[in-house]
Amino acid sequence: MTDATKKGENPGEGPVPKAVVNRLSLYLREIDHLVRDGHNTTNSNQLGKLLGFTDAQVRKDLAYFGHFGYPGVGYRCDELGGAIRKILGTDQQWNVVMVGVGNLGRALLGYKGFQQRGFRMLAAFDTDLSKTGTQVEGVPVYPLDNLSEFAKGHTIRLGMIAVPATAAQAVADRLVAAGVEGILNFAPITISLPDRVVHTGVDLAIELEQLSFSVLNRRNEDQASVDS
Amino acid sequence: MTDATKKGENPGEGPVPKAVVNRLSLYLREIDHLVRDGHNTTNSNQLGKLLGFTDAQVRKDLAYFGHFGYPGVGYRCDELGGAIRKILGTDQQWNVVMVGVGNLGRALLGYKGFQQRGFRMLAAFDTDLSKTGTQVEGVPVYPLDNLSEFAKGHTIRLGMIAVPATAAQAVADRLVAAGVEGILNFAPITISLPDRVVHTGVDLAIELEQLSFSVLNRRNEDQASVDS
Repeated sequence: MTDATKKGENPGEGPVPKAVVNRLSLYLREIDHLVRDGHNTTNSNQLGKLLGFTDAQVRKDLAYFGHFGYPGVGYRCDELGGAIRKILGTDQQWNVVMVGVGNLGRALLGYKGFQQRGFRMLAAFDTDLSKTGTQVEGVPVYPLDNLSEFAKGHTIRLGMIAVPATAAQAVADRLVAAGVEGILNFAPITISLPDRVVHTGVDLAIELEQLSFSVLNRRNEDQASVDS
Repeated sequence: MTDATKKGENPGEGPVPKAVVNRLSLYLREIDHLVRDGHNTTNSNQLGKLLGFTDAQVRKDLAYFGHFGYPGVGYRCDELGGAIRKILGTDQQWNVVMVGVGNLGRALLGYKGFQQRGFRMLAAFDTDLSKTGTQVEGVPVYPLDNLSEFAKGHTIRLGMIAVPATAAQAVADRLVAAGVEGILNFAPITISLPDRVVHTGVDLAIELEQLSFSVLNRRNEDQASVDS
């Protein structure tokens, strides 16, 4: 992706804004839908319409990463899709482990979208030994104490946390010790990690709370994210 | 933190940036933790430390909404928490319905954080009649065809969608017809809605994809969201 970044005319300065990277995922999702529906090409107008963005927005976002269009053709779906996958890193496979096999953890283990996007659920871990030794959605569940041993035999790049808030920091520390490079944290608490490990928090209650704010202020979240 | 703001002196122009509103939820979450731990007051330095933000960031964010601090005291937790709840709209109760009672829908129905934040799960709906007539996590499950009838007897303000992508738009249309003002969509597809209905999409695969991008570009998501 370094090539693409160099090649591209970065419209801003410094790192690509988070909102742009987020929209890149949305473009990829639409391109995948278009390919599934038999389309070979698309353009900024069509992508914009599908997502409620202007065509100028689409072009500006993609311009951060390179030149993807052809005059009179637009974008070739397979080419643009491949380029976005390369930028996002999902042209490679990522080994993921899950910690916490409660309701949410189980639902996440069964979530088909992860596999489709290049994420491989390698194993799950829980402190509740009545859950270990089983498989959930085809993923083996081990005792949390086995995590470091497991990490010796496998390359784990990403970890997901779906444990109660009180346990999340300790779990995060174990994942870091196990060598993960990134953590997706579903526990409703902010975890602190060494700088070398990136992390994102997804707090489902906060998502709903942000929605109630938007209802009261009657502005469309998607539009807001375009503007930000 | 006291002199940071005159009442409601918006540091920017136009609507409050989405990232600021998002951080407001994080401040509230920390304040709730502090109250639970017996603290009566806090300050921008402490809040910032807990979240990995600068104290200046905290003060600037809060300044969008008013003047909350006291000289020599900082913020009173109950007062600032109450003010943020009022801004976010969670000082009132929101009736929510869920459509889709698969793995993810079930996990969401069991998610304790919603109730704690003022969201009341009124009912769930599914087209699979083997699931209807039951309760999941204390929430009754009805046939989707009963939604409009149900809406006549209840005020539904928010809807959550946890159905497959192919069904999501039709479900969204039904929720709009039932009078919801906002939709939280977990289906991996962009839905289109009338302007009066706000919506947010949470695509779990995209969350992981954004994380892989960040790992490859080694920048902390949380830092990025502060900067954006």
